[in-house]
Amino acid sequence: MAPIRLGMVGGGNDAFIGAVHRIAARMDDRFELVAGALSSTPEKAAASAKALGLARSYGCFEEMAEAEAAREDGIEAVAIVTPNHVHYPASKPFLEKGIHVICDKPLTATMEDAAAMEKVVADSDALFILTHNYTGYPMIRQARAMVEAGDLGHVRIVQVEYAQDWLTPPVETQGVKQAEWRTDPERSGAGGAVGDIGTHAYILANFVSGLKAESLAADLQSFGAGRTLDDNAHMMLRFAGGARGMLWCSQVVPGNENALKLRVYGDKGGLEWAQEDPNYLWFTPLGEPKRLITRAGAGSADALGAITRTPSGHPEGYLEGFANIYTEAADAIRAVQGGTSREKAMGLLPGIAEGMAGMAFINASVTSSAQDAAWVTL
Amino acid sequence: MAPIRLGMVGGGNDAFIGAVHRIAARMDDRFELVAGALSSTPEKAAASAKALGLARSYGCFEEMAEAEAAREDGIEAVAIVTPNHVHYPASKPFLEKGIHVICDKPLTATMEDAAAMEKVVADSDALFILTHNYTGYPMIRQARAMVEAGDLGHVRIVQVEYAQDWLTPPVETQGVKQAEWRTDPERSGAGGAVGDIGTHAYILANFVSGLKAESLAADLQSFGAGRTLDDNAHMMLRFAGGARGMLWCSQVVPGNENALKLRVYGDKGGLEWAQEDPNYLWFTPLGEPKRLITRAGAGSADALGAITRTPSGHPEGYLEGFANIYTEAADAIRAVQGGTSREKAMGLLPGIAEGMAGMAFINASVTSSAQDAAWVTL
Amino acid sequence: MAPIRLGMVGGGNDAFIGAVHRIAARMDDRFELVAGALSSTPEKAAASAKALGLARSYGCFEEMAEAEAAREDGIEAVAIVTPNHVHYPASKPFLEKGIHVICDKPLTATMEDAAAMEKVVADSDALFILTHNYTGYPMIRQARAMVEAGDLGHVRIVQVEYAQDWLTPPVETQGVKQAEWRTDPERSGAGGAVGDIGTHAYILANFVSGLKAESLAADLQSFGAGRTLDDNAHMMLRFAGGARGMLWCSQVVPGNENALKLRVYGDKGGLEWAQEDPNYLWFTPLGEPKRLITRAGAGSADALGAITRTPSGHPEGYLEGFANIYTEAADAIRAVQGGTSREKAMGLLPGIAEGMAGMAFINASVTSSAQDAAWVTL
Amino acid sequence: MAPIRLGMVGGGNDAFIGAVHRIAARMDDRFELVAGALSSTPEKAAASAKALGLARSYGCFEEMAEAEAAREDGIEAVAIVTPNHVHYPASKPFLEKGIHVICDKPLTATMEDAAAMEKVVADSDALFILTHNYTGYPMIRQARAMVEAGDLGHVRIVQVEYAQDWLTPPVETQGVKQAEWRTDPERSGAGGAVGDIGTHAYILANFVSGLKAESLAADLQSFGAGRTLDDNAHMMLRFAGGARGMLWCSQVVPGNENALKLRVYGDKGGLEWAQEDPNYLWFTPLGEPKRLITRAGAGSADALGAITRTPSGHPEGYLEGFANIYTEAADAIRAVQGGTSREKAMGLLPGIAEGMAGMAFINASVTSSAQDAAWVTL
Repeated sequence: MAPIRLGMVGGGNDAFIGAVHRIAARMDDRFELVAGALSSTPEKAAASAKALGLARSYGCFEEMAEAEAAREDGIEAVAIVTPNHVHYPASKPFLEKGIHVICDKPLTATMEDAAAMEKVVADSDALFILTHNYTGYPMIRQARAMVEAGDLGHVRIVQVEYAQDWLTPPVETQGVKQAEWRTDPERSGAGGAVGDIGTHAYILANFVSGLKAESLAADLQSFGAGRTLDDNAHMMLRFAGGARGMLWCSQVVPGNENALKLRVYGDKGGLEWAQEDPNYLWFTPLGEPKRLITRAGAGSADALGAITRTPSGHPEGYLEGFANIYTEAADAIRAVQGGTSREKAMGLLPGIAEGMAGMAFINASVTSSAQDAAWVTL
Repeated sequence: MAPIRLGMVGGGNDAFIGAVHRIAARMDDRFELVAGALSSTPEKAAASAKALGLARSYGCFEEMAEAEAAREDGIEAVAIVTPNHVHYPASKPFLEKGIHVICDKPLTATMEDAAAMEKVVADSDALFILTHNYTGYPMIRQARAMVEAGDLGHVRIVQVEYAQDWLTPPVETQGVKQAEWRTDPERSGAGGAVGDIGTHAYILANFVSGLKAESLAADLQSFGAGRTLDDNAHMMLRFAGGARGMLWCSQVVPGNENALKLRVYGDKGGLEWAQEDPNYLWFTPLGEPKRLITRAGAGSADALGAITRTPSGHPEGYLEGFANIYTEAADAIRAVQGGTSREKAMGLLPGIAEGMAGMAFINASVTSSAQDAAWVTL
Repeated sequence: MAPIRLGMVGGGNDAFIGAVHRIAARMDDRFELVAGALSSTPEKAAASAKALGLARSYGCFEEMAEAEAAREDGIEAVAIVTPNHVHYPASKPFLEKGIHVICDKPLTATMEDAAAMEKVVADSDALFILTHNYTGYPMIRQARAMVEAGDLGHVRIVQVEYAQDWLTPPVETQGVKQAEWRTDPERSGAGGAVGDIGTHAYILANFVSGLKAESLAADLQSFGAGRTLDDNAHMMLRFAGGARGMLWCSQVVPGNENALKLRVYGDKGGLEWAQEDPNYLWFTPLGEPKRLITRAGAGSADALGAITRTPSGHPEGYLEGFANIYTEAADAIRAVQGGTSREKAMGLLPGIAEGMAGMAFINASVTSSAQDAAWVTL
Repeated sequence: MAPIRLGMVGGGNDAFIGAVHRIAARMDDRFELVAGALSSTPEKAAASAKALGLARSYGCFEEMAEAEAAREDGIEAVAIVTPNHVHYPASKPFLEKGIHVICDKPLTATMEDAAAMEKVVADSDALFILTHNYTGYPMIRQARAMVEAGDLGHVRIVQVEYAQDWLTPPVETQGVKQAEWRTDPERSGAGGAVGDIGTHAYILANFVSGLKAESLAADLQSFGAGRTLDDNAHMMLRFAGGARGMLWCSQVVPGNENALKLRVYGDKGGLEWAQEDPNYLWFTPLGEPKRLITRAGAGSADALGAITRTPSGHPEGYLEGFANIYTEAADAIRAVQGGTSREKAMGLLPGIAEGMAGMAFINASVTSSAQDAAWVTL
């Protein structure tokens, strides 16, 4: 199958996440990057495009959407890898031209933009995929399947946390670009850690447990000197059906690099997973010894074969998990091009619904915290 | 030094914790168990006493306090290892006779009893030691010392959890005695998991962080069918000085045997410890590789020598940690017998203050949860 | 049941292992230490005895054996906790008087002494128990039972290692008494690490696998400056029935505190255990997820209840494992006193056979290494 | 920089390692696969080429070498991913045409082919890179650099093992293609596990320790029914300069997926690494707490930045480690094209020297084992 022609908005030289998207798109040879508006500064965009050997470079995304839509060999999909406040304006022209969008999370910086995004997605025929990449890990899929199959019985408790340490010092005042926009409400939105990593934790908890959170009570803090957005957040969750949970996200806890951890417990068993060791999944059936299920190993579902590349014991990592989203996106794009409905084509891919859920989560967290941790409906 | 003559109330044949207290008392040869009122049923008490080779057996604790206080070779201290609702009535007569009390936690079943206990302790010359045994682990002492020395900088975040699985099924209806009284408000008090294990977690967090919790917001659940007391509790904590925390305790999460875990983070570093692997302490200085400090190993304080018995790599466990409380109690008893003040003699031993703090914690948890997780002052 | 009256030879103030034996003997209240010849220097012996509150102190073990045998309330058993070269002379007089001997390993310092010990044990009615304490760990018993039950199928491969780091520097020249005698051929015998810790590894491998090693090829080294005995040893093993193994022991590998590890694999499954985390046992049935069996947890045998004291998740350690040997020794002593045969009474306790096997192992290791790692029959 | 035009020999539809090479080549966008002789059967070759969207498919490698060398836009490099016995004949025509070769390990199936390969490499101007991919892991590079910098002091002991379980049952008789050729002396050569995975372990031990093994004593076994090649091997190693080691490789130990582990100890510290958790490196400086160095985390060398793609805590895995070999190969190819000497261009890349060392290792292992584990010079 010919690779999908891909464009990119954002992701110039300095950016971390742009490079990740490019490797993820390339991993399984399902995309070919051919065009980009890689920076908001045209010169920088051109320089980055040249460094990447990109066929076509544009000074801005509006121009790119226009021009690519007009070409016969124009891009079929675009990756939006800008800071949050650009997600909506950058996605809009492509969606309106019917070009599929693969957008970084969270959905937008504001609730207004989110509502607008929801509308433009609804009005488009194109797919909108949100890179909640952690849902692409094989053992997360395994976990979700086990919950669905009833291996845990009735789910009672969900514990999720996402801990990092890189904002422990006030690095946003020390020239760290990644920190600058992430701690800036104008570019990040109302949530700090809550938006940047809390949404990942929240979406993952819903994804695996199969439960929808109904309300939350949150206590947000800004420990970094002069920081206005939260860098640490504690919250309690109530799920439909009676399950309860806790969510902790922090970017100020030394020794935690990218420590996303999920634990789900039912009346018959539990599951435990940690992103930094993603090839392992603990399954704890009540009254039996704990079992360590490994990616592609004994006890992992055959169905996972489609989203793993190496045998058991040959570890896959962050990039492979991210690539699974891209590869499934490629399948989905080819499917809708072949006439499949958008809904069916999406399968387990995160999209506008997860984007809206994440925005509701950020909004509720900030609202609850401002009301002294009152319960806020999601 | 001659061993201290010890009595015991409760701890008959079936009881788990009585046997633990006896081994802990014996470990360092600092106590000799000579008398007991081991059961509320005199025949059972006598049978248990005989099985233990006890010199003197009593039908009830009042009689025992009376008789032992009258003997020249009477007991110097008594261990109270009954269900919670008996802690106060059983401690009272001994304290009034000047016999030192080593009492299991939580302090009492009710706030009324707690207040009464506080008064009787204040009015006595005897020591009152509460076996928050987890504070006796060497690496917990190491952690506390490191926080105190400033190795973590200013403490910001405290995460503590205590997870078990033994109440996942409704075992209290299946003949499990340990479960029967623990799920019974009459004998346990207002808190279920919160009282049984939540207090351990709470006291430990305060002990290591050196911080006092000021308020909490709690969401308590009873997942077990027909259970009235909580078996799972989520809460958020606010500490004096601005630190924030979360506490989770549960007795219904499959795969968790006795998973008490504490994490404390400051602006310069963090500490992580897990009770099931108690000889290890992770220290995570900001910007440096994580370090694994081991009991009696390189990097553990010399001062710990007093409360460890084996070289590094020769693991100590639960009983040794428990024994540390007893051995320090022996030191304290001999010290007050020699004229040292009670306060000074207590050193790091948990006592009435920790007992009252634990009761306030249980009370606040239940109160907050009843008020939809409103913040309640501690 | 009344505690057994115990004496001790060696184990004065400085000694590590003497204190361990005393705690182990006391743990389950099955022994009462009443007499000792705690040091080869009478003054030191007296001082140590006084510090321990010992009823009767002797200047030498001959005198002690004589005097205690003559008393109606004389010791029933004696613990020999001296350097290796004293094991035989100290055990002899007690065995000849029918006093049961609990002796530290390895059996003796020389093959001559070993042969003499074997004879004196054969000629005595008393029990001879050798404290290969690691065989007392509950999960080691669990592992042995699983191999015996065929859970691993036909055993093919045994990997055992015992790594320490305390002799990395030449501490025997720096005043470390423990190192002085262990690196001295006069007091330790022909084996250094091989005798001190290699015997533990070797006996444990045989104990769990149920296989007898038939021959070995060894390469011994002395890395410490000026050291004559081995401080690191590599060897290959051939077992009866076709299984093969490797054994590594070292006292010069930084970062290893007391890292005894055993792995046994058959054609149907494997087992992995590490002494520093003794409450866990990995079971790896072929074609199924790995299972983590925990002491007293789901999947551990009921029979282990007899040698564990705490519920799952409440870790036991080195002292409890050691105490299991003592408690089983108490059972065995009472049994032979009641007429049971020595062989039957011993049960799984290590004794003279294990002692002779250990000596053969040391001898074969040294012989093989001297012959450029030629295979030597065991 | 334009991607390097790459061809491939072997790696048709069924093959595991061919797909790995393709992803590794693609990961950093440094190669473009344009031609292939993907199977020894022309129809299969064509079908595989079509599935991959390959521009040019050849029926055999001789034809491919000839044709590609004649094209202006012919391949610049070729990946040889066939069974072992084809490595030499397939590499030869490309090397003779000056086309760079990236060849899977071990070098060849026979010592004769190895000698011939050495000659053809010597006579060519092209680079010869052997994919000892585990040397490409960032933490392996970190380890090597630390040894080189003296962080371990004088290296004394090297322990390396490589354990798998997939050949525990006789799968070569059950239709598993990967097992068929690996257990066949005609296609694999004289070594079974020794050649397939032992060479990885051996080369890695040399790579990190910086030491050359001088001799070995080996005991090889074939546990699988009807198997002629070894599936388990035990050996002892002697290194130049006095260091000693052990090497164990096995493909019949249940529960081991791809458990390559390396431990190196000097008189000042040690290093421990495990392939299944490749982002971690334990550093154990003598007399200090163990430190866990993480890829891209605090304490890992800046120089590693060139061979990592994600921040710390975002795990990289097997494919990224493999890709590092390819990306360094791309650098090396461009360098020699620019006039740099082959030796300088190779840098840390494994090549013909490692290939010859691996063959000597296989040969010595088999020879030693046939001589009852006599020491054989390497």
